[in-house]
Amino acid sequence: MPETAPLCYKDAPATPLSAMSNQAEANIPFSARVSIEQVEEGTELAPKFDEHGLIACVTTAAGSGEVLMLGYMNEEALKRTIATGEAHYFSRSRQVLWHKGATSGLVQKVVELRIDDDQDAVWLRVEIPGDASCHVGYRSCFYRSVPVGPGDFGRVLKFEESEKVFDPKQVYGDAPNPTKL
Amino acid sequence: MPETAPLCYKDAPATPLSAMSNQAEANIPFSARVSIEQVEEGTELAPKFDEHGLIACVTTAAGSGEVLMLGYMNEEALKRTIATGEAHYFSRSRQVLWHKGATSGLVQKVVELRIDDDQDAVWLRVEIPGDASCHVGYRSCFYRSVPVGPGDFGRVLKFEESEKVFDPKQVYGDAPNPTKL
Repeated sequence: MPETAPLCYKDAPATPLSAMSNQAEANIPFSARVSIEQVEEGTELAPKFDEHGLIACVTTAAGSGEVLMLGYMNEEALKRTIATGEAHYFSRSRQVLWHKGATSGLVQKVVELRIDDDQDAVWLRVEIPGDASCHVGYRSCFYRSVPVGPGDFGRVLKFEESEKVFDPKQVYGDAPNPTKL
Repeated sequence: MPETAPLCYKDAPATPLSAMSNQAEANIPFSARVSIEQVEEGTELAPKFDEHGLIACVTTAAGSGEVLMLGYMNEEALKRTIATGEAHYFSRSRQVLWHKGATSGLVQKVVELRIDDDQDAVWLRVEIPGDASCHVGYRSCFYRSVPVGPGDFGRVLKFEESEKVFDPKQVYGDAPNPTKL
């Protein structure tokens, strides 16, 4: 099955990795975490992965600032993202490395990669060819809002994108939906 | 210890909860997840919490779009955020509900709350009184970037904020630093 997954196709199938040499990946240094000052105030990359070996990643559109997706990276995905300048994630349900857009062409070009204070979260600002979008058919995965604030009213989700950018049936065919109940 | 924690003080101490009635919280309906169509295409709020009972939350500045922090909410934090229009999180290391700014005054007013396609991530767009910032002293938790792209060069972190907004020692005194190695 081709990797046709746009932005938030979190469980896209494993794809052939790009032809990056192991040497390039090996050249991405991750420092040991030795002190709070080093982690927060220093210039060494010392990421913290959770008990599953993952780090959370927020991905926004470099132009609009819109939050497109929230994904996860393992050590290899983060190193490949840094080395190639193209977003790589780790699919939690499929347990595979995922080079976003390797087959579909909807590669996320990393304009900027930031890491947070305690280095347990990553923020990618990306550019994507075309108006790439969520596997449901929308531009961003976050296409619905929830009414907030005091008051005894319904909390019916509101669609913030009025039209789908593409027809997921045409793009994915019979591929299994990545959403899990 | 007062809750003086600005934006990314993830492990801020437990704080007195706001005087929201249980009734208001009870009025936030979370639907059971019964089908993919319901979760992705429907208007029912049916969030998915992970094995720790948490859902990831990206928080951005409503004006600039800057990603300020990546936090986590449990069911109660999400319901209180929706019911009050003020951001509540759950501190993973302290295992307590955290009403952001309850004591410090740096309350995050929710301009918009969005939920993603499979409803396992939340995006808050917030406004904060003053130029609130990270516990390290910066505006956003994501104050450092990592050079990306091919090439055999160093990956020294670059500070994207040139000056701290406040002196954390003055704000926090001897409070323990929330960052864990």
